[in-house]
Parts: sequence; structure tokens; C-alpha cells
Amino acid sequence: MFELLSRDGDARRGRLQLAHGVVETPCFMPVGTAATVKGLTPAELVEAQSQIVLANTYHLWLRPGLETIERAGGLHAFMAWERPILTDSGGFQVFSLESRREVDDDGVTFRSHLDGSVHRFTPESVVAFQEAIGSDVAMVLDVCVKLPATREAIEESVRLTTLWARRSVAARKAPATALFGIVQGGLDAALRVRSARDLMALDFPGYAIGGLSVGETREEMYAIASLTASMLPQEKPRYLMGVGTVRDLLESIDAGLDLFDCVYPTRCGRNGRAMTHDGELNLFNAAFTRDFGPVDPRCDCNTCTTFTRAYLSHLFRSKEMLGPRLLSHHNVYLVNALMREARAAIEAREWNNFRKRRRAWLSHPSTLRQAQGGLSSG
Amino acid sequence: MFELLSRDGDARRGRLQLAHGVVETPCFMPVGTAATVKGLTPAELVEAQSQIVLANTYHLWLRPGLETIERAGGLHAFMAWERPILTDSGGFQVFSLESRREVDDDGVTFRSHLDGSVHRFTPESVVAFQEAIGSDVAMVLDVCVKLPATREAIEESVRLTTLWARRSVAARKAPATALFGIVQGGLDAALRVRSARDLMALDFPGYAIGGLSVGETREEMYAIASLTASMLPQEKPRYLMGVGTVRDLLESIDAGLDLFDCVYPTRCGRNGRAMTHDGELNLFNAAFTRDFGPVDPRCDCNTCTTFTRAYLSHLFRSKEMLGPRLLSHHNVYLVNALMREARAAIEAREWNNFRKRRRAWLSHPSTLRQAQGGLSSG
Repeated sequence: MFELLSRDGDARRGRLQLAHGVVETPCFMPVGTAATVKGLTPAELVEAQSQIVLANTYHLWLRPGLETIERAGGLHAFMAWERPILTDSGGFQVFSLESRREVDDDGVTFRSHLDGSVHRFTPESVVAFQEAIGSDVAMVLDVCVKLPATREAIEESVRLTTLWARRSVAARKAPATALFGIVQGGLDAALRVRSARDLMALDFPGYAIGGLSVGETREEMYAIASLTASMLPQEKPRYLMGVGTVRDLLESIDAGLDLFDCVYPTRCGRNGRAMTHDGELNLFNAAFTRDFGPVDPRCDCNTCTTFTRAYLSHLFRSKEMLGPRLLSHHNVYLVNALMREARAAIEAREWNNFRKRRRAWLSHPSTLRQAQGGLSSG
Repeated sequence: MFELLSRDGDARRGRLQLAHGVVETPCFMPVGTAATVKGLTPAELVEAQSQIVLANTYHLWLRPGLETIERAGGLHAFMAWERPILTDSGGFQVFSLESRREVDDDGVTFRSHLDGSVHRFTPESVVAFQEAIGSDVAMVLDVCVKLPATREAIEESVRLTTLWARRSVAARKAPATALFGIVQGGLDAALRVRSARDLMALDFPGYAIGGLSVGETREEMYAIASLTASMLPQEKPRYLMGVGTVRDLLESIDAGLDLFDCVYPTRCGRNGRAMTHDGELNLFNAAFTRDFGPVDPRCDCNTCTTFTRAYLSHLFRSKEMLGPRLLSHHNVYLVNALMREARAAIEAREWNNFRKRRRAWLSHPSTLRQAQGGLSSG
């Protein structure tokens, strides 16, 4: 299912064959929590060169619910997206409900954030749901701990995540859905090692690193992601959950990760924050109201080749929804383009130069700074 | 500039040559108040077969302001729309400010709804603004009266509208911008006649009927629109301001009107209200959550050929912006298609049959009713 095509240092260039198509890695997955990547049509996601999108079991379970998606002919048909879909298990969402959920060894009972109705996730029910809606990649139900946490709490989350991972593997029925395990363990290296070993014993077709990008420092995240990646088998895809800034993606690819997802590009897009080759721009900055250049002069997306910073600035100031739409498209395109260039750099054994150059662009603002565009590094 | 190609009863089939292209009439103009038709890109407006869009002097004057639009190279370049643009004068907006404006014979002083800043519109400044931003069709500054109103108030609005129309004509400088007069007169037939005659003496290249669709009954509107249209010269285009439901468009074409604008299709699109051949549907209706047919089975727009009612229902219930976007596209496409079919029907001398059939579809719901889709007439 996964083919490791080449390596440059720890950076990997791979190819993942899924039920709905091929995913070239490293690859970023835009987040379509509720069966829609906010503001973008499937056709635009293809135009932005997205290979796979992410959706969320917790949200889809509650709305529109299993029966609607099944009657639509599965999640792909429901949202009119023909390429692969990875669904998160909903573990992260359920555990973030805090006072509205109760966990036991068998599963977790929670109240919907929408209407307070009571639901129960078990490792088995979450696998069954993802298989029923036709996910290309399903994630096991895991236990996420909010950081900082006591060692005991993290240890317990690892114990339960392993226990549930075993039951998830046993519950698999649909060969078209690849089930990935999720390594937990917080910032504790020993627990990360334990969790990774526990899961590797189950021989998943892919492994995710969960429980990061949840409030720790960037250095802590890099250290744990790097350590965990180094323990995972070379021949399986590695997915770092929740990562999506340009800087973090560069470091994570460098640590040997293959797949990434994050709401960052679309959330920034909705809020007037442009990701560019040279760092990030706040389009609400007054300097942009009369800046008739493209959002990112180095980008060839439809937003950058058609519209100006001044126009997008006007749209955001006027609260016009075309602004979020156009900028989300650009941000997703930019991150996808970064992945495409990263793949080419790894293939050409130019990865380290590429990474350093892209990082330098972020740290040493070029012409953009001269526009006083409120540059900050990625 | 305007060519009357054929007539069928009072219905007219015409062609309007403007600086940025040809507009085949009857024609509906989607409203892009703030230099954006809410939620839609220029490319999508073209895909929806829009020939011309409307923008608004009042809004653009305040934000982004003349200098920004001029430095962008005009309104077309600013919003990346290459086809014709008609700009309303802002008269309607300014007079709806009520306590925030003061009118005298020379013009009107008002406070911005955005920041309270004080501005002044005169007939001359409003023409100059529209010419400077490169409008294909500019509208004179007119005086709108909120209905019901006393005869004296309406008479005064006609007097001032005529006075300002004369000054507007004298203020013209850019031949690329066609300046249209606006007939006022409320629901008073004699005053409508007076206003129309006053303006016709000025030999405008086109005439609008203003002050309707502002709270009067549908029958009152039809009567006054029809009366006014019958007085206007055959060889000039006639624009009925603020009309946009399927039923109203059919009646207005029948009364001999050529151009229409309304926020209705896009506002409905944002609120989950689908315009269809068979009437209107509220996509929040529970029946649609499991309806896997297209929004309008008779429509071949991208929304209808790609997505289902169930999916749009999910998007609206989830407050996902893709919903407003997809439904606005459909509604604009549907109204543009209605215009295209109306043009063909008039050419074929089938107008009356066409109008009756389309009206009957609205009044006698067909299969849609069976879906219990909360049908109401257009």
C-alpha cells in the first residue's frame, strides 16, 4: 500500500495507494471537518492540487449522521469528492469535551455539543462508522490528554489507547479502509516509545503521531515528533496530526513524516491571514488597502493571478465572504505547492538546501517587508 | 446604443451595446453592492451566464473610496470583472438613512453608516464618481420616498429628481459611461407621468423606474411599472430597479421592461432559500435532509449537477459557507436562465405561452410538492 520511493536524510518521498486513488507524499490534507473544506468546492480543492482531504467522525456522527451518509452512497458521494478521504476517529474531539464525557475501559460516553444528546464511542463503533461511510483511511479511537498533564494521566492514556487499538484491529471488516494507529505519550519520551512499540506489535498499515500541536512549544513538538518518527517502521506511512504552518511542515518533513493535516491554512484564510513564501501577512493591515500586487508574488494560484491585496483587503474589511473563500483557496494551494516542491527536492536529493532556503525566506523577509505588510515568520 | 430586435405583445427583445460589451435583454443584473456579488467569483458569474453586474455608488464611495478604485485602474480592474457594470447612484441608500441625512436643492449631506463621517452627494459629484470608476451605465442621483408618503412628499421628490437629472446631464464628461434617468412618482400615476415626461425631455440613453419594490403590494407595483413603461420611448432601454423574483420578472418583462436587478437571488441563496422552476424551497425544511435529488431537477447549473439537496441542507444546518456559495450560484444561474429563455420566447413569438407556463409551474407545484419541500410560489 505504501511505497518508499526515495530518502534524503530523514526526509522521505513516498506513494500511498488508497481505495480512491494515489497520494504522493509528503502530503498535506486540508481539513473538511463537516464534510466540507470550509468555503471551497471539491473542484477548487482539485484546482488547488489537494490529493486527499480529512473529515471528522465525531462531527459526521452527530450531523448528518450515519444513515444520511450511507443513503447518499457514502461520504465521497455525499460531499461530491472523488479523491481519497481520511477520517479522524473523533477521539480528540470527544476528549476535548471534558465535563461532557465519561471514559471507561470499554469506551467513552459523551454529550453532543450541538444538542446535548448522549452518544457512545467504542473502538469498534468508531471503526464501523468510518468503514460504513467509505473512508480510505480510518483512525483508531485514541485517548488524548490535554497538556500539561501528570505522568500518570499520560500513562493511562497510552494504556487505554493500546487496549483500544487492539480491539480496533480486531473490529476491521472493510479491506478498502486502511486503519492507522495513533501514538500517544504526551511529551514523555519513554511513554512515546512504549506507545509506538505497543502499536507496532499490531502491524498497522500506517501510524499517526497524536497528542501534539496541543499547546506545547515548537521545540518540544519537534523533539517528540522526531523521536517518534525515528522509531516507526520505514515501510509504513507516518502521519503527524494537527501540523500546518510552513515552518512546522518543513521541520516535520525533515523529521521523516509523510502526512499532515491542519485547519491552519483555511482558518487563516477565513481570518485575513495570508500564508506566503515570505511569511504571513495580515490583510487587515492598512498598508494593503492600496497594494495592487498579488497576495504572494511567487504563487500562481487563481487568487494570486486574478486579484490584488487591495481587493482582498477590501473584501475582508467589508466582511464579504468572497474574501475568506479566495484566501482559503490561496493558503491551501500554497501548502500543497510546498509539498509538491518538497517531494521534488527529496527526489533530487536537494532537500536540505530546499528546507534551508524556505526557512530563510520566512526569517529574512524580502520585498514583502518593504510593503510594511505586518510580516511575521511562518 | 440600444437596438430593439423584436417585440411580442409588450415584451421586448433587445441588445444594449456598452463600453465593456453587449447585454442581451431582457437581462437580470446580480447585485454586487461592494464590488463583489456576495460569495461568487467573476469566473462563476460568467459560468452562471451573467452579462452585467450592479455595484453601488454609496457603498463604494465610503469603502474603498474613489482613490483606491482609481489607482486600481477602475472598478472593473479592482474587482476583476471584465463585463459591463451598472452603478446605482446611491440615492436609494442615502435617503434610507433618514435621520442621518439632510437634503437641500443642491444635494444631500449624510453621515456614513460605517463610521459616522460626513459626506455630500450632489448630482455632479455622483456622476463624476461613476465616470471616474469606469461604470458602463451610471444612474442619476434621485430622490426616493419611503411609501406610504403624502402626495406633497412624492411631488417634491419628483421636482428634485428632475432638477438633479438636468444637472446630471450637464455634468457628463465620459462618453464611455451611459447615464440613465430614474422615473420617480410613488404610486401616483399623474406624478409618474410628470416625472417620465420631465426626464424624456432630457433625452437620456436609458430610463429606470425607481421607487418601486419598496413595500407596496405586488399589484400596485405591476400597475405603476406597466404604466410607466408604456410612456417611455420604444427605442431606449428600460430598467426596473429592485425586481428579482421569478414571478415579478415574468410580469415585468410582460410590461415591456428590459433590465432588472435585485439582491433577492443572492440573499435567498445565503439564507437557504432555493429558487426553482417550480417555486421556492426552504432547504432548512426537514424533508430535505434525506433528499438526494438536485436542488432543481430542471436546472443544469454546477450546483444542481454536482450536489444534492441533502448535502446543501447539511451545509446550511452546519452553518458552512459552502452552502450560501453553492445556492447563490444556483439562484443567479436560474434567474439568468429564465432571462435567456424569455429572450428566446420573445424572438419566437411564444412569449405569452412561455410566461403562462412558467407562472403555472409556480402556482401548481409539481413533483416538488410531493417531497413536502415547503413550496411557496415565487
